[in-house]
Amino acid sequence: MEKKVITVSREFGSGGRSIAKELAQRLGWSYYDKELVKEVAAKTGFDPAFIEERGEFAATKSILSYALAGQGTPGVMRGMSASDFLWCMQRDVILELAEKGSCVIVGRCADYILREREDSFHVFVHAPMAFRAERIVRLYGESERSPEQRLQEKDKKRRVNYKHYTGRDWGVCQNYHLSLDSGALGVERCPDLILTAAGLSAPKQEG
Amino acid sequence: MEKKVITVSREFGSGGRSIAKELAQRLGWSYYDKELVKEVAAKTGFDPAFIEERGEFAATKSILSYALAGQGTPGVMRGMSASDFLWCMQRDVILELAEKGSCVIVGRCADYILREREDSFHVFVHAPMAFRAERIVRLYGESERSPEQRLQEKDKKRRVNYKHYTGRDWGVCQNYHLSLDSGALGVERCPDLILTAAGLSAPKQEG
Repeated sequence: MEKKVITVSREFGSGGRSIAKELAQRLGWSYYDKELVKEVAAKTGFDPAFIEERGEFAATKSILSYALAGQGTPGVMRGMSASDFLWCMQRDVILELAEKGSCVIVGRCADYILREREDSFHVFVHAPMAFRAERIVRLYGESERSPEQRLQEKDKKRRVNYKHYTGRDWGVCQNYHLSLDSGALGVERCPDLILTAAGLSAPKQEG
Repeated sequence: MEKKVITVSREFGSGGRSIAKELAQRLGWSYYDKELVKEVAAKTGFDPAFIEERGEFAATKSILSYALAGQGTPGVMRGMSASDFLWCMQRDVILELAEKGSCVIVGRCADYILREREDSFHVFVHAPMAFRAERIVRLYGESERSPEQRLQEKDKKRRVNYKHYTGRDWGVCQNYHLSLDSGALGVERCPDLILTAAGLSAPKQEG
């Protein structure tokens, strides 16, 4: 079946987001990463900054922080934690966007949420620690913590969040149609490999 | 660095072995699967049938079966279980073969054993249960147990053995440069995808 949705899950610093953006550009498809935040904000009334922070890391926050965040949120939550409510809304938005038209979606358990759509193609991008450490320092600069600590923390949050909401282990081959080591393969070579594997080709340029 | 060794780990019934064989043929490289057994037999004096059975499933056997199998095995074992001794010998053979010349190696934790060789490329092939069930019945026929049971048992043995000898989880993206769902992608398309990803091309045919 012709693929209409590509989901890209990724280790922090692996270049997965750049690869996803490039795929969307080449295919002329919609691209949803932070763009998803706007859609969820419109649906929930939550503050975009809150959604962005919690969208991928919800389950790692304390119960107290859920309770505090819940103040002033819509009545439809009916006792759900803000994070669980956000998960449900984000899930609905992802299902709707996939229905609406061809798109590339980054992270947010979209591989799990769309696992039954036969027109979706699920990709995982990872890379060795040293490659990712060099890359995040180059792209995002230094910080108080070592790049290795920053990578481990962010990956751990994604792993815990994924397990909490999907019951599956993050980064297990069987969850994806294709997984690639962008460090060994080269970030710039990944879009072509993904397009070929998915049986997709970029539309011809005019002119 | 130009790749000289490809390791193919695979779920039972995914077509990983056919894919590996095709890769070796196209590249004109040596192919080691059951062929490894002969090498290990020559080195250890073990019976080939014993090596074949234990080579991938060693750690799932009982202590008693180790003790019985140990009867009549070489004195160099010095108190090691037959399975642990076999693991060490098999490891040596894999390291020697990789040193000797370009080759494709199937299973036997070769991805782990050769993880520090920069000229090696590690692949994992998996597929959905229904795809694999249909495939093993077609290739190996029916048996008393359902194809799903046979798949689960064999995958479990491989998983336990891999964990026991490598300390790593089997089928985790980060262990491989590339992982593919042969059910979704098509077994026959996988060799091309692997060659492209590894930056290898088949030698031109004469004539």
